[in-house]
Amino acid sequence: MIPEQYKDLLNTTALAHIATIGPKGEPQVNPVWFHWDGSYIQFSQTTTRQKYRNLQRDPHIALSIVDPQNPYRYIEIRGVVARVEDDPDLAFINGMAKKYLGVDQYPYHQPNDQRIVIYVEPEHTSQMG
Amino acid sequence: MIPEQYKDLLNTTALAHIATIGPKGEPQVNPVWFHWDGSYIQFSQTTTRQKYRNLQRDPHIALSIVDPQNPYRYIEIRGVVARVEDDPDLAFINGMAKKYLGVDQYPYHQPNDQRIVIYVEPEHTSQMG
Repeated sequence: MIPEQYKDLLNTTALAHIATIGPKGEPQVNPVWFHWDGSYIQFSQTTTRQKYRNLQRDPHIALSIVDPQNPYRYIEIRGVVARVEDDPDLAFINGMAKKYLGVDQYPYHQPNDQRIVIYVEPEHTSQMG
Repeated sequence: MIPEQYKDLLNTTALAHIATIGPKGEPQVNPVWFHWDGSYIQFSQTTTRQKYRNLQRDPHIALSIVDPQNPYRYIEIRGVVARVEDDPDLAFINGMAKKYLGVDQYPYHQPNDQRIVIYVEPEHTSQMG
């Protein structure tokens, strides 16, 4: 699914800019930390976030990742949310903190945050550079 | 419309990740060069690009800009396409090449490309950091 020559972008610490469909059918987009497990793009959310509500309503999603070493090289991945998993012990978000911050524990966790992991199944890509 | 403490992001050479609605109602997103004139976010397209066709169908758009100096600081701007202008002498795309590449002429122009400038009117923002 992911072109071989762009797979390296999925193992960088680039941010993924994730686009979802808002309540009025409008596009919304913001940057997130992500992990690629070879099959799915994964990212963390809290259950109160707009993005999670958007995806419950419409599971279509697109994400754009730019090569940190070359701003003229990027991949866009479009797909759907394949599943959502709980992250009760914060294993996933702590792993993201390790990847992006180099620390063992995600420092911004709030006691009432319910963390989930969203799995995106790629269906289509576009790329440049 | 744009919070004062985030206006500096609109004068950086960050890329804007622009989300539009595709032909099946799905989100699409990719990075573009942009210019902020104090009222509108402007970016260049060719008339054959998917993004332009998307915006002719549905003028809603969102864009995400991350601070090049601080990956935990960003602004999302949602809005609509206020107008589209021709760029027959390539003044706009050449200006973008000056901003992002430091050269006077956009080096990737193809003879048959019809360049336009898309003006986005901000209606809502979200931000972090």
